[in-house]
Amino acid sequence: MDAERALAVAAGIDQDIAARLRFVLEIDQLKNVVRQTLLADSSRRENSAEHSWHLAMTAMVMAPLAEEPIDLDRVIRILLVHDIVEIDAGDVFIYDDEVRRAKEIEEQGAADRIFALVPDPIGAELRALWDEYEARDTPESRFAYSCDRLQPLLLNLAGGGGSWSTHGLTADRVKEVNSRIEWGLPTVWGVADALLDAAVDDGTLLPPPED
Amino acid sequence: MDAERALAVAAGIDQDIAARLRFVLEIDQLKNVVRQTLLADSSRRENSAEHSWHLAMTAMVMAPLAEEPIDLDRVIRILLVHDIVEIDAGDVFIYDDEVRRAKEIEEQGAADRIFALVPDPIGAELRALWDEYEARDTPESRFAYSCDRLQPLLLNLAGGGGSWSTHGLTADRVKEVNSRIEWGLPTVWGVADALLDAAVDDGTLLPPPED
Repeated sequence: MDAERALAVAAGIDQDIAARLRFVLEIDQLKNVVRQTLLADSSRRENSAEHSWHLAMTAMVMAPLAEEPIDLDRVIRILLVHDIVEIDAGDVFIYDDEVRRAKEIEEQGAADRIFALVPDPIGAELRALWDEYEARDTPESRFAYSCDRLQPLLLNLAGGGGSWSTHGLTADRVKEVNSRIEWGLPTVWGVADALLDAAVDDGTLLPPPED
Repeated sequence: MDAERALAVAAGIDQDIAARLRFVLEIDQLKNVVRQTLLADSSRRENSAEHSWHLAMTAMVMAPLAEEPIDLDRVIRILLVHDIVEIDAGDVFIYDDEVRRAKEIEEQGAADRIFALVPDPIGAELRALWDEYEARDTPESRFAYSCDRLQPLLLNLAGGGGSWSTHGLTADRVKEVNSRIEWGLPTVWGVADALLDAAVDDGTLLPPPED
């Protein structure tokens, strides 16, 4: 037995159920998409599936601090779905602007392929959640994005620099990217900003380059 | 900088935010709790954080097939939270009844400790979600449990036996444990049951022992 054989047997009984099972098996691959961020204990790099879970939990505990009224359940659904396109397109390091722009078309194609595996209306709903995240034009997508910036910042601080050190990033660049935490969680950004200053002071994060 | 130093700096600015950040860092450890189940490609064992994400996604795509009316958002929240106690208590193999009973008190203690890290009302809400999952006395907790049985069954089929082979499990025992898929997803259990028969036929799963 392998995945294709199991899905063929299932399709012989019920094609709708088989289509849903195919999607469940398809997205298992997100567990093999490795991000730049290390776990808090620095033992290994994080994958995008466990990252998505961590962001959904982050949203739950940070929700009372949201700047605008949000539908938390929609935020959670957005965060569960937001990285699935990486199964085809791979993870892009947030600081790599050039690669990020180049990946946009590839990610659209991935969304076309992967979410279409699920029968509507759920397939269309998953696609709409991903489109909403990409557009960042709702309170929910902005809050979700703030969580997606906060969590790696915390892991990097806990790990004594993590992917900032690996990539030689300086504080000005880290602050520029992560100040978007302010979109959804302004008081949390206040604390995170001070943590970045403390990280420069103790040598965890490189200072801004001299003018 | 390490986690304790970062949290001390944060607490000096805002104790409520620092408590939430501590929880976010604490649950990062769920990524290091390794389950018996292998990924669909058999490359490694699954961890409980990515498993939780996968179950929440499974619930989203299977929801239209639910036996009873369910609040899907509550199901998703239950599934995101349901394994967090394993940070202290470890994962228990579903087929190991003796260890599972022995772990119950340990898991209660873990829930007491971990969910109390989050300021109320969110801390109390996370605890209530976990209690609901354990009690299986609502349509949402039963549907969540059905997803938690379906996903490893699929991974084991895709991987040609996976943890069933490792542990020498026979079809009768696998069916006994996984027939609980029927609680929330009876038509899916019909397909899964046939898949288990096909797995016995092709040698993926050991047949029931002869009487």
